[in-house]
Amino acid sequence: MSSTAESAPAGQSEALWSVEEHVEDILAAIRPLDPIELPLPDAQGCVLVEDVVVPVSLPPFDNSSMDGYAVRTADLSGATPEFPAVLTVVGDVAAGSGPLPEVGPGQAARIMTGAPLPPGAEAVVPVEWTDGGAGGGAVATMLPAGEGADGASGEVRVHRPAGPRAHVRGAGSDVQAGDLALEAGTVLGPPQIALLAAIGRGTVRVRPRPRVVVLSTGSELVQPGEELAEGQIYDSNSFALAAAARDAGAIAYRVGAVADDPDTLRSTIEDQLVRADLLVTTGGVSVGAYDVVKAALSSVGDEDEPGSGIDFRKLAMQPGKPQGFGSIGPAHTPLLALPGNPVSSYVSFELFARPAIRAMMGATEVHRPVVRARLAAGKPVSSPAGRRQFLRGRYDAATGEAAPVGGAGSHLVAALAHADCLIVVPEETTSVEPGTELDVVLLG
Amino acid sequence: MSSTAESAPAGQSEALWSVEEHVEDILAAIRPLDPIELPLPDAQGCVLVEDVVVPVSLPPFDNSSMDGYAVRTADLSGATPEFPAVLTVVGDVAAGSGPLPEVGPGQAARIMTGAPLPPGAEAVVPVEWTDGGAGGGAVATMLPAGEGADGASGEVRVHRPAGPRAHVRGAGSDVQAGDLALEAGTVLGPPQIALLAAIGRGTVRVRPRPRVVVLSTGSELVQPGEELAEGQIYDSNSFALAAAARDAGAIAYRVGAVADDPDTLRSTIEDQLVRADLLVTTGGVSVGAYDVVKAALSSVGDEDEPGSGIDFRKLAMQPGKPQGFGSIGPAHTPLLALPGNPVSSYVSFELFARPAIRAMMGATEVHRPVVRARLAAGKPVSSPAGRRQFLRGRYDAATGEAAPVGGAGSHLVAALAHADCLIVVPEETTSVEPGTELDVVLLG
Repeated sequence: MSSTAESAPAGQSEALWSVEEHVEDILAAIRPLDPIELPLPDAQGCVLVEDVVVPVSLPPFDNSSMDGYAVRTADLSGATPEFPAVLTVVGDVAAGSGPLPEVGPGQAARIMTGAPLPPGAEAVVPVEWTDGGAGGGAVATMLPAGEGADGASGEVRVHRPAGPRAHVRGAGSDVQAGDLALEAGTVLGPPQIALLAAIGRGTVRVRPRPRVVVLSTGSELVQPGEELAEGQIYDSNSFALAAAARDAGAIAYRVGAVADDPDTLRSTIEDQLVRADLLVTTGGVSVGAYDVVKAALSSVGDEDEPGSGIDFRKLAMQPGKPQGFGSIGPAHTPLLALPGNPVSSYVSFELFARPAIRAMMGATEVHRPVVRARLAAGKPVSSPAGRRQFLRGRYDAATGEAAPVGGAGSHLVAALAHADCLIVVPEETTSVEPGTELDVVLLG
Repeated sequence: MSSTAESAPAGQSEALWSVEEHVEDILAAIRPLDPIELPLPDAQGCVLVEDVVVPVSLPPFDNSSMDGYAVRTADLSGATPEFPAVLTVVGDVAAGSGPLPEVGPGQAARIMTGAPLPPGAEAVVPVEWTDGGAGGGAVATMLPAGEGADGASGEVRVHRPAGPRAHVRGAGSDVQAGDLALEAGTVLGPPQIALLAAIGRGTVRVRPRPRVVVLSTGSELVQPGEELAEGQIYDSNSFALAAAARDAGAIAYRVGAVADDPDTLRSTIEDQLVRADLLVTTGGVSVGAYDVVKAALSSVGDEDEPGSGIDFRKLAMQPGKPQGFGSIGPAHTPLLALPGNPVSSYVSFELFARPAIRAMMGATEVHRPVVRARLAAGKPVSSPAGRRQFLRGRYDAATGEAAPVGGAGSHLVAALAHADCLIVVPEETTSVEPGTELDVVLLG
């Protein structure tokens, strides 16, 4: 609340907040959701809130890295294909099988990849270095277990010597008990879930996905698939922003097209509070006589409760000038009131709602990546003085250029659908020459 | 099936397939899933299979881009703050409101953003250019509708002239009926969903998300959260690969840890066929005597049915040498049999299963992005001759370098969890000097 706009008397031109001021105010008010213990599959994409320490070393025991024979190295001294070491096979060691055979001098145990090294054995020779117990030349595979002369007994001829620990993965060679496996703040993708499962974690402490209720307002709105009457348009915001909320990592609930009546809107919002960590409305935030969100929410705050209520302001940006933000209801659920034009609401969501969702998830980086790129355009691009313009564009990483798509009109949803970035024209700039380097927000 | 390995007699060293040969064989056999009509919210992330044509122009009618007054331009000629044009307000036009007032000479209608331009009016003046009907100076906002002297009647003073069509968004200025809105092959993200909703599409024809059943095998496997007995380890593959399948866009079903028994495995897989567009197994594909997947699936094909059955082969890669691929069951459901080591299975999934899933979704680009990066390492990195090595690494876009994480051992799941790329060492290379430029697969 650092602007002087609040004190501007009605009827006079108001000062505008900057984009940064608005983002800062939102992020200062948003708190990460309380952590919960989730089953591993449900924690995908969530942020870890605990330092996870390895409870048991991996692998938990010395084991074979090959299919072959567990041997004593002294028995193989000088072995060659012509003069192989002949060992007595004392049994089979498969991963997860029962008691281990003891390997004595002159003996070997057939062993599978991942199976524990049996007592007495010092190394493993791959099956390809042996006759596989078949009495012939070197083999490429083992005979299946349990099929007649299957190689788990009798003799095996080994054609090469092996050093101590050859083809043995030592206990703890991956991670040691007590090591830090993953630190708090890690986002859990598939490889992190692999590690957590491997060290035996069935559940993990994370911040949950925020539940975001998206609500569009406007008596002119009709649901897609229905017939348009005179003066009506289709509701696109509730679909687009619910999708964008999901894309940001949230669980999104869509409430389409509440009519322009403050009482209906207020009661609809109150009904939704039970399932909302964040409310996002679109429309009704401007200076019009029917701006229902403003009318309904300007007075929702408890006056005795600091920080409650919704604050409406104008930002020095295009599109997306009128914006509202605050909290509502007994739990002070945060609410973002975005403008109603589809492109304005989408750009506003990217700049304000997405960082709020990411912050609730506990992400350290809440903003979209920003790169510098040269403007690709046939002629200078104009921009309003004193407003930061977010042009929809296409970014080409190979050339380092970004080209505007469609015009600057905030209603060009067709152009938005073909854009993959927002080209940022600073407040003080009114005309940008082609080739000028600008910030570009990558929409991923 | 272009390798000569198939004809290599058992007991001799087999030829190896290349990574490309295996990928090509898989993609040649995978077909995109049949398209279905999905409600818009369910189509997020899916690939469109129809060219979507705009059924009705957007906006569907001339409408106001500002809150203000709809006027006839001749009435404002020469208007200034000192000598304003005084117009009779004949009514209110809000978005979605009923019949429109006719604006005659000397008249104005109060109009809200998005509302249809009423008959007779030629332009809109923003409320900030007027006294808002209050009889005073310029105002910043409108009075709310329906509250006493609310500005929807009486007189309004306009302080500036306006040209024809000023602050009017023309019908069809966003998209015209008959235009191509989105072409087949487009991936539906939030902005594309915005456009589809805006043009009234409640459902859309897309390829559905593939249902992928992930199944780990191994008698030694215990579910995370349970106690490990002697010789046991935790099942991580079913968790990691189900997460990776989800990450690729699939609906994933996890079947954890089937014991090493061919009959059990075969019946488990048969049970899962009903909900699988793709099956992914891990473990049991090598040369060992207990390699159950190989034992169970080598003979599943219908001999009269060309292309059915699972083919097991060795690839010239590390990790991930043993691989199986084919189809199973009456619907010839594709099945990928990946190795059982956690890192091998994850790398194999990235290289083979992810492209298969993306191809089933109808994506045009099925592979992870590959960039060139310089090897960041304190000493040369060694690599086995004749094998393409995929080192787990961290990529730094700012420096264009990639540094290996952990060692080359295929069991280092801890290192995998800290990697964000795979550094590719070509088959013929046995040692890589620091600074050498290599392909790097970005894991996103």
